[in-house]
Amino acid sequence: MWEDKSDADLLADFIVTKEQRREIPIIGDPDPDVLWRLQIFYTCVALAIEERSGLLASSTMMMSPEGFGRVVLTTGRLVVLSKTLRDVHRFGFDTLGKLAKAGAKLVDDAIAAIEAYPDAARA
Amino acid sequence: MWEDKSDADLLADFIVTKEQRREIPIIGDPDPDVLWRLQIFYTCVALAIEERSGLLASSTMMMSPEGFGRVVLTTGRLVVLSKTLRDVHRFGFDTLGKLAKAGAKLVDDAIAAIEAYPDAARA
Repeated sequence: MWEDKSDADLLADFIVTKEQRREIPIIGDPDPDVLWRLQIFYTCVALAIEERSGLLASSTMMMSPEGFGRVVLTTGRLVVLSKTLRDVHRFGFDTLGKLAKAGAKLVDDAIAAIEAYPDAARA
Repeated sequence: MWEDKSDADLLADFIVTKEQRREIPIIGDPDPDVLWRLQIFYTCVALAIEERSGLLASSTMMMSPEGFGRVVLTTGRLVVLSKTLRDVHRFGFDTLGKLAKAGAKLVDDAIAAIEAYPDAARA
């Protein structure tokens, strides 16, 4: 089912334009689809960190039914990403460019942390 | 409601004797009470780490409805505790002594990690 899809098709669900966002209620419970996309996003960040660092990255995400939570990515004993999640039911990016930029920034920050704390990252 | 309870009363729910454990099915979904006890246990570990280290400890726990999951405690950029959780519906300790020992060991290990990676722990 997924094999015939182009990259753009696969990424389309991650795009929430300003107009679309305006139509989403400010307060709302995240549905399983948006939780799945959130998980895919941070899994991709973890995989990119692994590719660039050669270290295994683990992801732990906790989420209240109301869409507040926290995601922590670690390599060894180092926290390479820690982020409070909120308004998860509105998760998405204006454009593919902004999606790529947001992901790349998280990966860059994680790599910088690994370089700053090489021993903890390999513990 | 809680003020009149003794320490032993408050801790009684954490004790699952061998006989009691034998009566719990091997596979089962954790109920909210046991999830709450699990959270209290790791919150207490985090508080003890804070008290001994003077550093703020954050707890992130994720859990599938089937009782498998992961708990991560961090101070700064350091992972001071990372544990796979399983069979959570059977969570408990044989005796109060074993409960105290298990908690103390997690705190000791966390303090040792903070001493080994002081910069990451304070980042």
